[in-house]
Amino acid sequence: MTVPAPDTKRAVRQRGGVKKACTPAAPFIVIAWPDSTHSAKCVCFVFRTEAAVKLRDATQGQLLLTVSVKAKASRCLEDVSEDRCPQWLPEWVGAGCALSTEPRQGAREHLPTASVSSKHLGPLSRFLHFSYFPTLKAGFHLSGRRCPLRSGSSTKFLEMPGTTEELEASNEAPLAGEGSSDKISLEREQPTEEDLLLAAAYVYDAQYNRNIPFETSPQSIRFYYLYSHWAMQVATYFFIFLNLSLALFEEPAVYPLPFLATSLTEVLCLCVFFGRLVQFAKVTPRTVFWKDTKNICIMLTILLTLLDLIIYGSLRVFNIHSVRWSRFLRPLFLINFPESRQIRRAFRSIRNTLPEVLYVFLLLMFNVLMFSLMALKLFGDRNLKTVEGSSYFTNILDIMFDLYVLVTTANSPDVMMPAYDLDWRYSLFFITYIVINTYIFMSVFLAVVYNNYRKHIKNEIRKLAYMKRHKMIKAFNILKAKEGTEFVVKEVQWKRLVKIVAPDISNSHRELLLRISDEEQKGYVDKKCFLRLADLLNIQVITIKFKRHPLEMWMPHVYKSSGSLFIQKVVQHRVFVWIYDVIIVINAVFIALDEKNPFISYAEWVFLSLYIIEILLKLYTYEPKTFFARNQFWNWFDSLIIIAALMATAANAAIKSAVEYNSQQILDIVFILRLLRLIRIVDSIQRFRVIMTTLINIIPTMLTFGGLVLVVYYMFAIIGMELFQDKIQFFSESSTDPHAVDCGNPALKDSTFARSRYCKNNFNDLASSFIVLMELTVVNQWHVIADGFALVTHQAAKLFFIAFHIVVVILIVNIFVAFILEAFFVEYSLEKSEIETTIEKKIQELGMGIQEENVSDGQLIDNMETNENNLSGGGEMQRQSSKGLFFRIASKRYRTVDALLQRMFESEISPEDEGPSLDEILNLSPSDMYPKNPTFENSA
Amino acid sequence: MTVPAPDTKRAVRQRGGVKKACTPAAPFIVIAWPDSTHSAKCVCFVFRTEAAVKLRDATQGQLLLTVSVKAKASRCLEDVSEDRCPQWLPEWVGAGCALSTEPRQGAREHLPTASVSSKHLGPLSRFLHFSYFPTLKAGFHLSGRRCPLRSGSSTKFLEMPGTTEELEASNEAPLAGEGSSDKISLEREQPTEEDLLLAAAYVYDAQYNRNIPFETSPQSIRFYYLYSHWAMQVATYFFIFLNLSLALFEEPAVYPLPFLATSLTEVLCLCVFFGRLVQFAKVTPRTVFWKDTKNICIMLTILLTLLDLIIYGSLRVFNIHSVRWSRFLRPLFLINFPESRQIRRAFRSIRNTLPEVLYVFLLLMFNVLMFSLMALKLFGDRNLKTVEGSSYFTNILDIMFDLYVLVTTANSPDVMMPAYDLDWRYSLFFITYIVINTYIFMSVFLAVVYNNYRKHIKNEIRKLAYMKRHKMIKAFNILKAKEGTEFVVKEVQWKRLVKIVAPDISNSHRELLLRISDEEQKGYVDKKCFLRLADLLNIQVITIKFKRHPLEMWMPHVYKSSGSLFIQKVVQHRVFVWIYDVIIVINAVFIALDEKNPFISYAEWVFLSLYIIEILLKLYTYEPKTFFARNQFWNWFDSLIIIAALMATAANAAIKSAVEYNSQQILDIVFILRLLRLIRIVDSIQRFRVIMTTLINIIPTMLTFGGLVLVVYYMFAIIGMELFQDKIQFFSESSTDPHAVDCGNPALKDSTFARSRYCKNNFNDLASSFIVLMELTVVNQWHVIADGFALVTHQAAKLFFIAFHIVVVILIVNIFVAFILEAFFVEYSLEKSEIETTIEKKIQELGMGIQEENVSDGQLIDNMETNENNLSGGGEMQRQSSKGLFFRIASKRYRTVDALLQRMFESEISPEDEGPSLDEILNLSPSDMYPKNPTFENSA
Repeated sequence: MTVPAPDTKRAVRQRGGVKKACTPAAPFIVIAWPDSTHSAKCVCFVFRTEAAVKLRDATQGQLLLTVSVKAKASRCLEDVSEDRCPQWLPEWVGAGCALSTEPRQGAREHLPTASVSSKHLGPLSRFLHFSYFPTLKAGFHLSGRRCPLRSGSSTKFLEMPGTTEELEASNEAPLAGEGSSDKISLEREQPTEEDLLLAAAYVYDAQYNRNIPFETSPQSIRFYYLYSHWAMQVATYFFIFLNLSLALFEEPAVYPLPFLATSLTEVLCLCVFFGRLVQFAKVTPRTVFWKDTKNICIMLTILLTLLDLIIYGSLRVFNIHSVRWSRFLRPLFLINFPESRQIRRAFRSIRNTLPEVLYVFLLLMFNVLMFSLMALKLFGDRNLKTVEGSSYFTNILDIMFDLYVLVTTANSPDVMMPAYDLDWRYSLFFITYIVINTYIFMSVFLAVVYNNYRKHIKNEIRKLAYMKRHKMIKAFNILKAKEGTEFVVKEVQWKRLVKIVAPDISNSHRELLLRISDEEQKGYVDKKCFLRLADLLNIQVITIKFKRHPLEMWMPHVYKSSGSLFIQKVVQHRVFVWIYDVIIVINAVFIALDEKNPFISYAEWVFLSLYIIEILLKLYTYEPKTFFARNQFWNWFDSLIIIAALMATAANAAIKSAVEYNSQQILDIVFILRLLRLIRIVDSIQRFRVIMTTLINIIPTMLTFGGLVLVVYYMFAIIGMELFQDKIQFFSESSTDPHAVDCGNPALKDSTFARSRYCKNNFNDLASSFIVLMELTVVNQWHVIADGFALVTHQAAKLFFIAFHIVVVILIVNIFVAFILEAFFVEYSLEKSEIETTIEKKIQELGMGIQEENVSDGQLIDNMETNENNLSGGGEMQRQSSKGLFFRIASKRYRTVDALLQRMFESEISPEDEGPSLDEILNLSPSDMYPKNPTFENSA
Repeated sequence: MTVPAPDTKRAVRQRGGVKKACTPAAPFIVIAWPDSTHSAKCVCFVFRTEAAVKLRDATQGQLLLTVSVKAKASRCLEDVSEDRCPQWLPEWVGAGCALSTEPRQGAREHLPTASVSSKHLGPLSRFLHFSYFPTLKAGFHLSGRRCPLRSGSSTKFLEMPGTTEELEASNEAPLAGEGSSDKISLEREQPTEEDLLLAAAYVYDAQYNRNIPFETSPQSIRFYYLYSHWAMQVATYFFIFLNLSLALFEEPAVYPLPFLATSLTEVLCLCVFFGRLVQFAKVTPRTVFWKDTKNICIMLTILLTLLDLIIYGSLRVFNIHSVRWSRFLRPLFLINFPESRQIRRAFRSIRNTLPEVLYVFLLLMFNVLMFSLMALKLFGDRNLKTVEGSSYFTNILDIMFDLYVLVTTANSPDVMMPAYDLDWRYSLFFITYIVINTYIFMSVFLAVVYNNYRKHIKNEIRKLAYMKRHKMIKAFNILKAKEGTEFVVKEVQWKRLVKIVAPDISNSHRELLLRISDEEQKGYVDKKCFLRLADLLNIQVITIKFKRHPLEMWMPHVYKSSGSLFIQKVVQHRVFVWIYDVIIVINAVFIALDEKNPFISYAEWVFLSLYIIEILLKLYTYEPKTFFARNQFWNWFDSLIIIAALMATAANAAIKSAVEYNSQQILDIVFILRLLRLIRIVDSIQRFRVIMTTLINIIPTMLTFGGLVLVVYYMFAIIGMELFQDKIQFFSESSTDPHAVDCGNPALKDSTFARSRYCKNNFNDLASSFIVLMELTVVNQWHVIADGFALVTHQAAKLFFIAFHIVVVILIVNIFVAFILEAFFVEYSLEKSEIETTIEKKIQELGMGIQEENVSDGQLIDNMETNENNLSGGGEMQRQSSKGLFFRIASKRYRTVDALLQRMFESEISPEDEGPSLDEILNLSPSDMYPKNPTFENSA
């Protein structure tokens, strides 16, 4: 398939007529001009939303018209033809005409540049008169019964640069189907399968906040579905990580593989990336594709990597060692594929923060310099010695490094001790330094980073919310049909749509969504309700069916016997949970005790069986499918841990009794599993559970930071391996090598690095590098590591470590802290006042919801059981209307701060507000977010 | 003087009649009942503001009435007498009567408990009918011409518990001065000197946000003036710090003094504190005084200290060593005197945060325990050794301590190395641990602390703002006079008031304030403008007078000669500043170079003279008084540094040439002075200046944290000295003592503590203790110090260090970071949008202001000079109206976040809003501040 060209004739033919041209909800523009033999060239356009549109001549890029309109028209220009034009409706708000001055062959080149600003259009009169275009010699009314369109005129597809708008034009088809056009304007045809697919794509994108501009031709849409299939995305990520993990197998390798194997794998990865890119190019409009730096970046990276592979490979043939520098570029794939939006945003955060951080950093550096000079003068010629016996504060560069390290507190108080030993007053110098630089400046860094984070997160969320709204409006316009005075989406279409968008939701769930959307069961969904569909689909509704326990079905008299009921009552009782909490605590004590004692190792079996009995009892009491429902995290957790522990303990015992095999690995696993059980105690205390829930909610976004850290670590690791590989060696403790004490490098003799036995902190392979970088992130003793590597190479090597500190500790860790702060604040403000969306309210109103408060894990089941008992006790009538179905909103705590803020923002924009135009959305700036006059409420 | 008793008869006589009883703006209550021989006891009260009042029988504390009213009456109940009562005005909104059931001797004890809630009072009818008191057998109307007050009835002063309201009652004087009362009600007399003093006290308190409840009798007010005199406050602080600094001279002493001297000083301090307390007791109402825990706390501390002194002293006579435990209590004086409001607030912040922090901390501890158990099982029986050769992870308590230290990152990566050396996969254990505990949990601590800080700061500010409003209304009501239909304050009274409140502001400044308050020059200030007075006084207005240069006056033709003018132009030019910036940079390079080189030491003289020339040139160009104006920080800074450096350098040279005296101290000072000059570079770069300004603005509030840290450090230092005194000794480097290597304690042999030569980090005197605590605050290597002290005493000593870490690092440092974050955020939001108060606008409107933007340091002077040139050039007419005077608002950046937030809050409450009642203000809770539905704007 070729990349679709902006050839409208073909596009129109594919879409099956003019009516399709009316579907997009975005600024809808019909441009038509007569063929070049005619004296007048006409451009008519109708806007349906607020928009700023620039029309350019497609061939020359000359600006034709700039029109900015703001209006809400509720109707669509069905088609434009000689006869339909006079029935111009008041809702069509913008219309403009431009006529060329002279009729000529190839007159396109001579289209006048008419600039109509919104000011000229004024209150958007229905008709643009000739007088608005004083530079034009000819013009015409759109009023009256005359329309400038003539048969035989050619149509032109004009694209707006840089936006995702579709501009479609046609005046051919209406001429063919003139007769039916009257009817079409009043009642829409059934949307075709392609329309549904397109609408579903919009809804799906709105639901998951995907913002990939795609072409709307039916073929492109099918491609788009293929492109965004989860399997394709998983495959892309697989190859990205495969490509990244190649560093494990290349020299210096953790698991060495021949160069041929790794290079072939890399070429394979590159091919996959290229294929994915081609796929993306087919989906997205060509101009958009080439304007996107992400795509250019991927292409360049592929090219550079290939080039490097060729150079390295050919040099290798001649046994010349060279550097595989392109490995440094590999993380770019992770960043630049459209799926990694979150990671890109984190990087954007960093980039935005840089200017402000830079100034604070320069001030900090100035401070360090000042204090260094002071220290040089104060301590330089006193012949003081450090603990290691080296001279103290004599070299300005060393002093600066020492004082920079002191900012990170890593060498406190050692760096102070020689001066302090001399006179206690000198400690004031260091204390002043620490207070100013460590406490104040480091807090300022956090403040700057956090402030930027807050500023930008809001802006991005605003953008996302408006984009979502746009997509939903587009989808609505595709599917809408006229019902009375308003446009609506018919129930049939709605159901078909939902089936395409979310094929795996249950029928009852879909029915619920329909009842929420079509409250009065009128058989259609109006626009306001339709726009909420994406949010509705995003709410994880859990369908709760009241099932009877299988045992009750199989042998009801046994299960319902008094003994059995007593057991069920006991298990459901609060005290049962408490007893098991006590058992867990006792178990914890036993774990802490000595393992050697045979009594204790037998006790382990007792505990295991107690836990198994607990699970069995619960399974006896509760319906198994409900017990192991998807959201019953703790039930799953318990059972898995216990079963795994049972298996591992049994395996361990078997191996132990059979041979004297080293089962240490299994033992370790058993220990850890045994300890994980203790976590259950946390779950049984309410206050702890709240904190835990917040932390668990944060996890998905923390994975973004995982990606960010991975990218930065990988780059530093690659550089580090090139710089420091094999400079420091690790000898196992049993080694008798004389170099074992100085890590295999005489330069390290008597250094703190060797004395602290840091030999394993080296850059000899990817795993070691990552661990060293982690240690550097933790900051403590980083100067010892930096010193060590400086000793075996050059003092300039410290720059590598300082750079790492600045990037990771000052920027990334601070953004991480900012993110956690923000997450907790949003959680806190929610704790006080529940934001309930209209949708959630509706579920409650319909009487089909179960209060969130009642449904914390264990209690849910109690609650359900009680209901069931009531039902069987005779209250069945009450519930019959809901067919034994209950819905539960999976969690009112939204997974991420983003999702939450987005909902808050959306609840504040009215359903009628269609938001600014796409162009404007993309240019929204965070500084707009600042209220002009900060109020007391939102200031602190 | 005795403590004033609530004897109203005396109070009334002192105040000179009933009219005084009407002055307070707070709920004003007149209670009168006939003597006990009468059958009816009547309680009439009139409220003038929103209030919830509980009346209790003064002798028994029995609840008489609970009335809650909300109203705004614009008139004051002038007096209550038999004749005046019928002229009850509609503005008097609340009235209640309670009658005793049976007349009896000592009928007070039998007053009925009538509870009238606001519900009963309903829409606050003017008259309370008998029917409202169904439990009473008798009642009467307040309507009509009958009034229940009879001659010979006794009056009772009822106080409301816990508030600062004044309740004054009288019905004697009106009976005496019945004839004149009519006139008084229409036109007020001139306020007496006492009234002015009282009003001034209110305004002054409002201006400085002081909230000391004081009695309003003239004598008490004079006492209050004495009490709040700055000299008294300075003296109090002097003795507080003297008392604290006694620890320097007591055993273990930095500078030893005999026990007698220190104990006598302490007794002196205690006497001063007691005196101050007595003074406070005289100023404030007795019940308020005794309900205030601060006062009780001070008294108890004084008693306990005396007791301890006596016990210690007497034991000392018999040579028995005992512990001076009361030294631990000394910081309580710093906290509990009313002046230390800020420090108390910081402590309140900590206290409020405790519950939430506790839960997170318990979760953290649980985590540590879990990981410790895991570590014990994983590494316990592998016979690993640490670098020091001790066994690795074998004891659960040691492991827990090690892992707690790892949370603080202080022993990373050392604690990991033995396991990591064994197998690299074990590092994952530690990495997981660090990510969870150090990164996530520590951020959660910050989030919890910060969230609480934000919550409470707003509440406190709201309270302060309302209190201020109350005080200003009280002041207004004292001074008001009737002018037409409204009450106003006459210009004469206003001027007298301002003179008392702010005696040291210039006449022109006062004139400006009057013009702002009395915009239309009507000769009086209305209520709305009067309420702003405190804010007006708080704005630092700088009066700028355009003075001629003295040289111009003395020898105008020389000063105005072309050469002289050229010099002035050069000095004023931007390039002049740049040249000196370059000189400073060159100077910095010279400082960094070797001092020994004679060329360089001569260069210092060159630089010094260059700087002196700069100052002289500037003094020649600019008017000296303007150049050294109070707000010209950098001019002062430059000149002082240069003069000091000149003197020190000269002194150093003189001493050097005279004798071979060790002038190291002077040399150090010279070095530091020389370096401080470099700071000027920062000032010349705009972006740096912004950051610096913010930091400088934060300084005053940081002093609060200084106080907080001092209190905590002091307490820990005292405990530390008792526990660890002389356990570790420091030997100077030249010492040949064999114990020098193990800090004088064999237990430290081969310990990391001794090997790192930390011997001087001990608790042998207050200074050393403070430095050790500072090192512990910085966290790094704190486990080494803790281990050292545990070795010389007992392992339990580590608890001391862990406690310190929790209090200082987890709580105080986080509050400090929260404070800096908040300060920066407020600054940021201000940068975008200036909050200009009406007052500032007015100054601008009056054309008497100079734009803040034009007045950054050097430019100010330029600006002024230009104006002056214009003036002399003939533009004198334009400026004559303002008498050559210009006002400038010293700084739009307010010194503290508090001040700023308070202004923001005040700009949002309307001038008519008199706020809730005092009782309600004091009970405002931070949770009220939460918006019921958090919006997108104020959420993130």
